[in-house]
Amino acid sequence: MKTPISDYLVEILDAVRADDSGEVASYIPTLAQADPDQLGVAMTTVFGRTYTAGDADTEFTIQSMSKPFAFAAALWEHGEDDVEKIVGTEPSGEAFNELSLESGTHRPKNPMINVGALAIHQMIGDPGDSWTVRSDKLVKFFSALAGRQLRVDEDAFESEIGSAHRNLSIAHMLAAYNMIDTNPEDVVRGYTAQCSILVSTRDIAMMAAVLAAGGVSPVTGAQVVARPIVRQVLSVMATSGMYDEAGEWFTEVGIPAKSGVAGGILGALPGQVGLAAFSPRLNDHGNSVRGTALFRRLSNDMGLHLMDAQAIGSRALRAVVSEKGRSVIQIQGPINFTAAEIVVNRLAQTPPSESSVVFDVSRVGMVNEIGRRMMLEAMRRLNLDGKTVLLYDPENSFPDPDIGGGVKPEILSEL
Amino acid sequence: MKTPISDYLVEILDAVRADDSGEVASYIPTLAQADPDQLGVAMTTVFGRTYTAGDADTEFTIQSMSKPFAFAAALWEHGEDDVEKIVGTEPSGEAFNELSLESGTHRPKNPMINVGALAIHQMIGDPGDSWTVRSDKLVKFFSALAGRQLRVDEDAFESEIGSAHRNLSIAHMLAAYNMIDTNPEDVVRGYTAQCSILVSTRDIAMMAAVLAAGGVSPVTGAQVVARPIVRQVLSVMATSGMYDEAGEWFTEVGIPAKSGVAGGILGALPGQVGLAAFSPRLNDHGNSVRGTALFRRLSNDMGLHLMDAQAIGSRALRAVVSEKGRSVIQIQGPINFTAAEIVVNRLAQTPPSESSVVFDVSRVGMVNEIGRRMMLEAMRRLNLDGKTVLLYDPENSFPDPDIGGGVKPEILSEL
Amino acid sequence: MKTPISDYLVEILDAVRADDSGEVASYIPTLAQADPDQLGVAMTTVFGRTYTAGDADTEFTIQSMSKPFAFAAALWEHGEDDVEKIVGTEPSGEAFNELSLESGTHRPKNPMINVGALAIHQMIGDPGDSWTVRSDKLVKFFSALAGRQLRVDEDAFESEIGSAHRNLSIAHMLAAYNMIDTNPEDVVRGYTAQCSILVSTRDIAMMAAVLAAGGVSPVTGAQVVARPIVRQVLSVMATSGMYDEAGEWFTEVGIPAKSGVAGGILGALPGQVGLAAFSPRLNDHGNSVRGTALFRRLSNDMGLHLMDAQAIGSRALRAVVSEKGRSVIQIQGPINFTAAEIVVNRLAQTPPSESSVVFDVSRVGMVNEIGRRMMLEAMRRLNLDGKTVLLYDPENSFPDPDIGGGVKPEILSEL
Amino acid sequence: MKTPISDYLVEILDAVRADDSGEVASYIPTLAQADPDQLGVAMTTVFGRTYTAGDADTEFTIQSMSKPFAFAAALWEHGEDDVEKIVGTEPSGEAFNELSLESGTHRPKNPMINVGALAIHQMIGDPGDSWTVRSDKLVKFFSALAGRQLRVDEDAFESEIGSAHRNLSIAHMLAAYNMIDTNPEDVVRGYTAQCSILVSTRDIAMMAAVLAAGGVSPVTGAQVVARPIVRQVLSVMATSGMYDEAGEWFTEVGIPAKSGVAGGILGALPGQVGLAAFSPRLNDHGNSVRGTALFRRLSNDMGLHLMDAQAIGSRALRAVVSEKGRSVIQIQGPINFTAAEIVVNRLAQTPPSESSVVFDVSRVGMVNEIGRRMMLEAMRRLNLDGKTVLLYDPENSFPDPDIGGGVKPEILSEL
Repeated sequence: MKTPISDYLVEILDAVRADDSGEVASYIPTLAQADPDQLGVAMTTVFGRTYTAGDADTEFTIQSMSKPFAFAAALWEHGEDDVEKIVGTEPSGEAFNELSLESGTHRPKNPMINVGALAIHQMIGDPGDSWTVRSDKLVKFFSALAGRQLRVDEDAFESEIGSAHRNLSIAHMLAAYNMIDTNPEDVVRGYTAQCSILVSTRDIAMMAAVLAAGGVSPVTGAQVVARPIVRQVLSVMATSGMYDEAGEWFTEVGIPAKSGVAGGILGALPGQVGLAAFSPRLNDHGNSVRGTALFRRLSNDMGLHLMDAQAIGSRALRAVVSEKGRSVIQIQGPINFTAAEIVVNRLAQTPPSESSVVFDVSRVGMVNEIGRRMMLEAMRRLNLDGKTVLLYDPENSFPDPDIGGGVKPEILSEL
Repeated sequence: MKTPISDYLVEILDAVRADDSGEVASYIPTLAQADPDQLGVAMTTVFGRTYTAGDADTEFTIQSMSKPFAFAAALWEHGEDDVEKIVGTEPSGEAFNELSLESGTHRPKNPMINVGALAIHQMIGDPGDSWTVRSDKLVKFFSALAGRQLRVDEDAFESEIGSAHRNLSIAHMLAAYNMIDTNPEDVVRGYTAQCSILVSTRDIAMMAAVLAAGGVSPVTGAQVVARPIVRQVLSVMATSGMYDEAGEWFTEVGIPAKSGVAGGILGALPGQVGLAAFSPRLNDHGNSVRGTALFRRLSNDMGLHLMDAQAIGSRALRAVVSEKGRSVIQIQGPINFTAAEIVVNRLAQTPPSESSVVFDVSRVGMVNEIGRRMMLEAMRRLNLDGKTVLLYDPENSFPDPDIGGGVKPEILSEL
Repeated sequence: MKTPISDYLVEILDAVRADDSGEVASYIPTLAQADPDQLGVAMTTVFGRTYTAGDADTEFTIQSMSKPFAFAAALWEHGEDDVEKIVGTEPSGEAFNELSLESGTHRPKNPMINVGALAIHQMIGDPGDSWTVRSDKLVKFFSALAGRQLRVDEDAFESEIGSAHRNLSIAHMLAAYNMIDTNPEDVVRGYTAQCSILVSTRDIAMMAAVLAAGGVSPVTGAQVVARPIVRQVLSVMATSGMYDEAGEWFTEVGIPAKSGVAGGILGALPGQVGLAAFSPRLNDHGNSVRGTALFRRLSNDMGLHLMDAQAIGSRALRAVVSEKGRSVIQIQGPINFTAAEIVVNRLAQTPPSESSVVFDVSRVGMVNEIGRRMMLEAMRRLNLDGKTVLLYDPENSFPDPDIGGGVKPEILSEL
Repeated sequence: MKTPISDYLVEILDAVRADDSGEVASYIPTLAQADPDQLGVAMTTVFGRTYTAGDADTEFTIQSMSKPFAFAAALWEHGEDDVEKIVGTEPSGEAFNELSLESGTHRPKNPMINVGALAIHQMIGDPGDSWTVRSDKLVKFFSALAGRQLRVDEDAFESEIGSAHRNLSIAHMLAAYNMIDTNPEDVVRGYTAQCSILVSTRDIAMMAAVLAAGGVSPVTGAQVVARPIVRQVLSVMATSGMYDEAGEWFTEVGIPAKSGVAGGILGALPGQVGLAAFSPRLNDHGNSVRGTALFRRLSNDMGLHLMDAQAIGSRALRAVVSEKGRSVIQIQGPINFTAAEIVVNRLAQTPPSESSVVFDVSRVGMVNEIGRRMMLEAMRRLNLDGKTVLLYDPENSFPDPDIGGGVKPEILSEL
């Protein structure tokens, strides 16, 4: 059989292709020359498979989709506390070229608007680094995320620098408020280079998938970004990624996302997929018209809306059976808090009848931190109640199962 | 054994109790008289269990925590399109008493700020209904959500009405812009009654759990709110629920939430739990100081941050085995898109060797719409490839498994 | 001969009559019914003569033209310091129905916008006075200014009260910020009565002339308003009287003015005239279209622009002649600082040749305070230089001419 | 005798000297080094006399006091219509470094705030002119106003250019909105040179006196600026010259003024005097503390408040006497509209008894355009009534007295 996912992507491209409303960004000459009919979509699961359709390998400039990744880089280099002094995390609800500083602190409201992105950009690298060092660092980091070597489009860079008055205005204002140390012209040069990095729709899906996978590359398995940084980046994308359309986007699509003025949109659904769409015509909010339509389809068709999550743990407790004089607790599926609560509650309500209790976790998939802690706590309490606790874990879902004071359950090699 | 969850809740209450910073709301006389030391926490899982600690049964006025539920009621009565004409869904980033109307349309920016909540309130009931009819309707609806009969605190109502100048100002401005039809004084009366409904921390956790459970009462199993409405309510809570602290909240806590000026905070994590905290002292943003601290603890300790979701489907395909001349596809755990993709991809890459293919879904828990569709599509394609498709589904996870054109897989009663 | 002034007024009415652009105010029913073709103009000199043309005796509601006079009344009752605590004097640059409070103090920016006018209105009378007492006080005061008994139009009052949502919104917001003590509904009732006082174009010219004359009724000679209050009222009219058209108005017309939504405009040129125009159709700023055109004509044709003042004292020193062994200093025209400086400088540069010096002020008109002081100081210094100083002042322009230490010049009954 | 005016200036310097509140501007290094105790005052009458006290000849940079003069230069070069397309005339009520563009047009609100001043500056000279050509032009123009050769302080220029981030930010924003054509860096260079022109308090008083004198140099008598331009410049100074203190300034001081961050304040009272004060310590609004105090004293002591003007024409009609069979109309003092009205009204009410009517204007000083027209119209009407009209005008106050159709009154060489 052939996978239906590729067919599906072709199908939704066809569904949105007829809409030629919107306008290609005109304020940057190279963008104005883009073929407005280009259309591509890509998705990469957290397990590393990528599906694409349309012009998914055409390169275009990353533009504002670079913002979440540069934010991640700054968090990585400086830590949350230092970054927080420079840029906030509140939604601005404003168009992408507005100057939006908090009164009092003069902090940009968030890193997803230009003023915040400029402040973030100049945090990259060491003080005194030239702007090319900064942009080279970001090219390298973005390449690691995409899984291939990326590069700056020099023509696009030159074209944008020539009409960078808005960004220069913003950078000088940041300098006037002492929010940046670097020469404003160099900040804009470096930031423009950051925005001029060439990516394909496929690349963007892969970069988004790293975020969806908690910072782990779905392909190499390497931790490219620390998990708490990913959480922060996705949070800010959720509330501020789509300019003054952020609320409507979150309501309708429900996927943390960021758009770029070249027509790209990236979305990352934690624990599931990285998504990317590309089509150059933009709506009044500066977001790709057909890209937005594609994301609505993807969200609706594939049940990806974050607020539509369904309970996953209802059958966490497969059964409690007595076998060979032992009470066997058969646990299955992913074990998060809600799933673990079901198991723990059952054990508290109806104590196991046998003196030996086996936790059979051979059918368990993902176990998160709280799920693990609750299972171990249940073992500890049963142990305190005088039970002998045993663990059957052929897949090693509970490595190093210390239940307190160095005590460990007995490990069964078979049931 | 005793459940560790209750112990945990007691523990986090103790951890936050020492912080007596912040001030009890002073602008409403009855609120000013609240015992500032009260402290409670409650959580209700989507499977219906409730855990509490502290003053979880003390009643206090619901205040702004009523906003998401009144919004749900208006969506239910009028539909999304009509509600959208009156109130937007964009974050306002503003304090709770600011007048925040979209320029041009004069629509309040969202239903979580007072101006939006007043506009939403007056949509309840039929045109011409008196304000008591409107507030009675909401009492009834809120009671259904809480699972017990609630009532308006008449003293609180009288006290608030006497200092309702801000809301009267806002209601008259809405009338001036023709955004409301109802007499502004009556709108404020009805809205104040809505805010004066007495709830306990336990009630709030239960009401939140209905949202977390997609609108289904975790106790009765009844669909109290339609699922698409819940999605919309939670989305708006996520971006706008915590006033001008919304971005920081979402970054740090990552749970859609709403606070009330009496000191309550409600949070709903889709698919998992409803949460509630109560402590009357407020920070500068109008949110409970210790309530906020409790939510941070809960989110961190229990892995509840929405942006921290882990991949749940990695082991969706337990095994493919050949038994009795049949290829048996053993599927386990919850089946969402990411999990289904693993199964589908395997079948596409390595076609089953036998001519009969059994889908063994006996270990499957939750199956969402896309997961179901992808499984059925895989069956259809294998069928087109000439395979005989059979289904082993003792738990009825795939009711009515039509794979296209009325064709159904053969149902096995045992393997 | 017949005065050309009346002819001139008829002429400018004819010049503007053809312009039927703009719209009669529609948000108040009685205003919407006004005959849009009405057109009147009036002027009253500070010496008490009134000239009119067109519908100058038609009555209409005073509306916002009441604001400067109510401001004067509040200053009179409470003094500048107390009024300043409640309302500022900075231009707001905003449309008439915007809420424009200073951040921090929550003071309305100035008394010419509705929010400031409502705050000013409620300062009239004693605390606890009913709204009718307040509006009766203002009717009485306005009648004194107009020189005839005015009255509230009860139909207009009822009509406006029925659509007073904007003002109610503003009044409640003022109450919420504790900027007003009075019941907001009553403030709006009283203020609406203030706005519903019926005046004719002729009345408005007379009321304006009192301001132009420094608070003295040009007809009765009574000091109806204290001079420092008039100065303050005119200053605020100059910077804030014409809503968001204030700057353009001051640049083009150069006369402190205030418009009303019924189509009236009042202007007061200090030291010269009170002016009034009436025509109901309004431009986008809420100012009468033809009224504005009339004022532009009046300002241009009659050289009334405040910034176009010409030097008046160039010939203050008519001559210095030696007669009968006395140096006679012939002074003429109005004596302000600039005029007095010419005289003083001449005396300092070229001391009078004779030992007796006569100040002949028989040709002097207005002498202001500084002009008087400088003349007396010159006499004192000449006296110290050993001169005998005499004064010829048949018109008593220098009453009680004490030149220091009780010394007075010798008064001549004739030269 | 010695003139009391110099003594007076010394006296008010002493009165304000003790106040050492406020801070010297710190954001520009050379300003930060200024001696904060410097204190000077100067005034120049429209008749050309200058009085000074204190450090009136110390040079300092003109800074924002250059704005009205550069505005005048732009109006002169381009005309009102073209300038109006680039910069508005509405008060902004904002601090001097705020970006204050009209929504929609993106026009700076007025030329007295930096954004407007930058837009005005780049209008000087021909397109393509280098910034030094522009600043040289302004140096030349300012020198003509001051009556001596001025020059740019190169140290101050270099110092300011190094910290010109705010102005660079603003200039780039203007470029982004296509409000300026010139390279933003060059605009800021030229504007900074404009601000770095060295002036003394004495110079400023002279430059202000040119404005007070309707554009005529009080010293040379040359028309340095056209009268309508002066009117516009003074109007904008009146409503917008003192940043967010504009309303309070106009209310308290009542003199169109402009302050500079080096501590200077210039004021121009039309028809009377140019005033200047200098003291480097600034208040929160960026205006000189002691300079403000000096202006308050000057305004109060010398009766200079624009809204406090007194009627000057009350005795315009000295007498009507019958002499030698002729009615002699003795007119005196300045003849503006109000004065002329008195004469005209008398002639209309009580026609001259004799058949020959002499207008004796030998005692008349200033005659403005409307005063002249009304006098000639009265002569014309008397002529039509059959009177013989004669004019006694030894001072040639009514040159070329055409009363219509080429008819002229008979000129008397003596009475």
